[in-house]
Amino acid sequence: MLPYPLGLVEKLAISTPSRILLVVLDGVGDAAPSGETPLAAARTPHLDALARDASLGLSTAVAPGIAPGSGPGHLSLFGYDPFVYEVGRGVLSALGLGVDLGRDQVAARGNFATADAAGKIVDRRAGRISTALNETLIAALGAATREIDGVRVELRTEAEYRFVALLTGEGLGGNVADTDPGRVGEPPLEPLPLTGDEADRRAARVLARLAERARQVLSDLPAARTAEPAVNAVLLRGIGKKPDLPQLPALAKLRAGAIAIYPMYRGVARLVGMDCVPIDLAGTGERTAAKMAAYAAHAAAHELLYFHVKKIDSAGEDGDFAKKVGEIEAFDAIVPSLLAAAPDVVVITGDHSTPVPLRAHSWHPLPVLVWSRFARPDRRRFTEADCRGGSLGELRHLDLLPLAMANAGKLAKYGA
Amino acid sequence: MLPYPLGLVEKLAISTPSRILLVVLDGVGDAAPSGETPLAAARTPHLDALARDASLGLSTAVAPGIAPGSGPGHLSLFGYDPFVYEVGRGVLSALGLGVDLGRDQVAARGNFATADAAGKIVDRRAGRISTALNETLIAALGAATREIDGVRVELRTEAEYRFVALLTGEGLGGNVADTDPGRVGEPPLEPLPLTGDEADRRAARVLARLAERARQVLSDLPAARTAEPAVNAVLLRGIGKKPDLPQLPALAKLRAGAIAIYPMYRGVARLVGMDCVPIDLAGTGERTAAKMAAYAAHAAAHELLYFHVKKIDSAGEDGDFAKKVGEIEAFDAIVPSLLAAAPDVVVITGDHSTPVPLRAHSWHPLPVLVWSRFARPDRRRFTEADCRGGSLGELRHLDLLPLAMANAGKLAKYGA
Repeated sequence: MLPYPLGLVEKLAISTPSRILLVVLDGVGDAAPSGETPLAAARTPHLDALARDASLGLSTAVAPGIAPGSGPGHLSLFGYDPFVYEVGRGVLSALGLGVDLGRDQVAARGNFATADAAGKIVDRRAGRISTALNETLIAALGAATREIDGVRVELRTEAEYRFVALLTGEGLGGNVADTDPGRVGEPPLEPLPLTGDEADRRAARVLARLAERARQVLSDLPAARTAEPAVNAVLLRGIGKKPDLPQLPALAKLRAGAIAIYPMYRGVARLVGMDCVPIDLAGTGERTAAKMAAYAAHAAAHELLYFHVKKIDSAGEDGDFAKKVGEIEAFDAIVPSLLAAAPDVVVITGDHSTPVPLRAHSWHPLPVLVWSRFARPDRRRFTEADCRGGSLGELRHLDLLPLAMANAGKLAKYGA
Repeated sequence: MLPYPLGLVEKLAISTPSRILLVVLDGVGDAAPSGETPLAAARTPHLDALARDASLGLSTAVAPGIAPGSGPGHLSLFGYDPFVYEVGRGVLSALGLGVDLGRDQVAARGNFATADAAGKIVDRRAGRISTALNETLIAALGAATREIDGVRVELRTEAEYRFVALLTGEGLGGNVADTDPGRVGEPPLEPLPLTGDEADRRAARVLARLAERARQVLSDLPAARTAEPAVNAVLLRGIGKKPDLPQLPALAKLRAGAIAIYPMYRGVARLVGMDCVPIDLAGTGERTAAKMAAYAAHAAAHELLYFHVKKIDSAGEDGDFAKKVGEIEAFDAIVPSLLAAAPDVVVITGDHSTPVPLRAHSWHPLPVLVWSRFARPDRRRFTEADCRGGSLGELRHLDLLPLAMANAGKLAKYGA
């Protein structure tokens, strides 16, 4: 049997026309020392009206004290235990850059780094170089490493000191250990194959030569040599192939779609088998109009629709309370349009908290709202304080998929 | 990977100068039929002020319905699943007597017991003899059993009918079954080796001869013969060596220290790799002044400091409500001095409840308080009733180490 909850979902799922809307307010949870969080401060009449008739609770994304990245946070929401379904950093970074990895591709997350004369790493992030310098270095490296040992190599800037290396070659393996020693004072490690398979050994050889060529190119490159500190090494980690996850539409007997703008979220949705609903991606920021147009056109065609709202998290990362309030209020304004498509079940929560005082992802449990004809109405607001003690009690994100499906009449009785 | 939460902690720990203070109020939880517990009745202005700005919750020490001993209760608090890291009763008793077991030592917990003429046990505790009689018997037994088969034997009084047997010998094994049949009407069992290893067989032989010699000595000893009931047998259980636990400082990348007076707590702290901060152990009771002097001198040198408060538990064991209230108020008085060392995170809870009406350790979940700059402030008191429904919700003690580390900024994000 698949791990909880997928095994149960697979066993009990019933195909019905009822529709579930899963809204992910990225980073919505907060933890203000004053006690008043952005959710509490925001004026949210539409969300309040929905919450009054909904069941509320607090949900831990991954585990107490654990601040999840977007990958594990979303996998949990989709019913995939992130401790079981580990997706490498390289794959997540590639997804974040909009690269849809194929079966013959291996992704690795790369760091530009600084080594001393003896080759020992003295700064694992090369002084957090600018994205502009990263692009310059990647252009030079890319030109020198288009192919190694018959494998196509592609390098892409992510941000600051981070890049992604993509290898494409038939029968290439992805089980290769990090070259990042994880601390300063040691030289980069060899990329060791983690199995005896020739496929993994080949990937390891290519990555070793890639790292060696990168050192040579950087040592000849004035922009790298004269940077302060010098950029003269690369570290590779999270090496791997796109994992073969069980696919949600087949498991849960429903059509699953994603409405998301940013590549990371589209990528994770695709990993579990969701369709990315066509959206006009032009522009920057939340692109609410484009998302709502896509929603209006495609809501009816999916029994599970994941709708992602990004900028609440960005405001938290910026430590900007007023901006976070504003983004929550901007979401409130589209609630009536979301409800206009008449979903049978609405679930609203976040993939992790991003408290303003912390300016980073955090472990704080998330407010969660489940509205359906069968929800116990809690007559409260969708805030951290009101959700505490709501009738959903305390949950894990892994509980939300079966809970949503149950409210939608999509789960059969368990046992006679 | 190590079991939860140690595996996650090992993977995500970051070394930072931030400091965590973990205060263990031994046996603090209660369950008064009137509803008013000692924590609710106590006047605790300093604790109240801290609690107002802290997140509260109820934490189950080990599992629902399970009343833990001090060993499992503390191991859980330190992040060690007591169902995985079982520490034998003999080892815990030895630690409680201040014996720091070496690699060549085996400890067993002993009971003085009463057998009938046929050798069947009729009282597994020999009528709960006095500690004074225990000391008399141990003196006589000790003189007769200093060495068996090249193994040094040392016997020590614990209290009432309980003693500890320590065997010291190179290459001695610790996998030997109890001789205590666990019920009356049966003779003591042979101490059987649990493996085929010669080391375990040798320990079993030594323990068998120890039990036999004890019978002979007791049968000749007037104090034992004339006791009512007669003390004429010993039962051995919890036989074992000190376990090799993963060490917390290396795992969690922090310096961990313990401020505790009683040997059991110092011993358990040392098991997980904590340093026992030097304290003037002279005197009896709580020895608050000595602990506070040690705290003032050493708080800054540990990123995790465990501070043990004993007498609240003792008052619970005595069934003395007013005394338990008084001990809680005595703790409240030192809260300002604890905070004066400016810890970044404060966690306050107990290792188990010791309800006044029960006069014993219990299973009742414990109030827990987590204060940090990033805690959601619950604006409540640190009582059983107020902690229920606090924003930490319901926890297990195993969750507290990652939660404390997260609040201290000592855990990296999980996944990208």
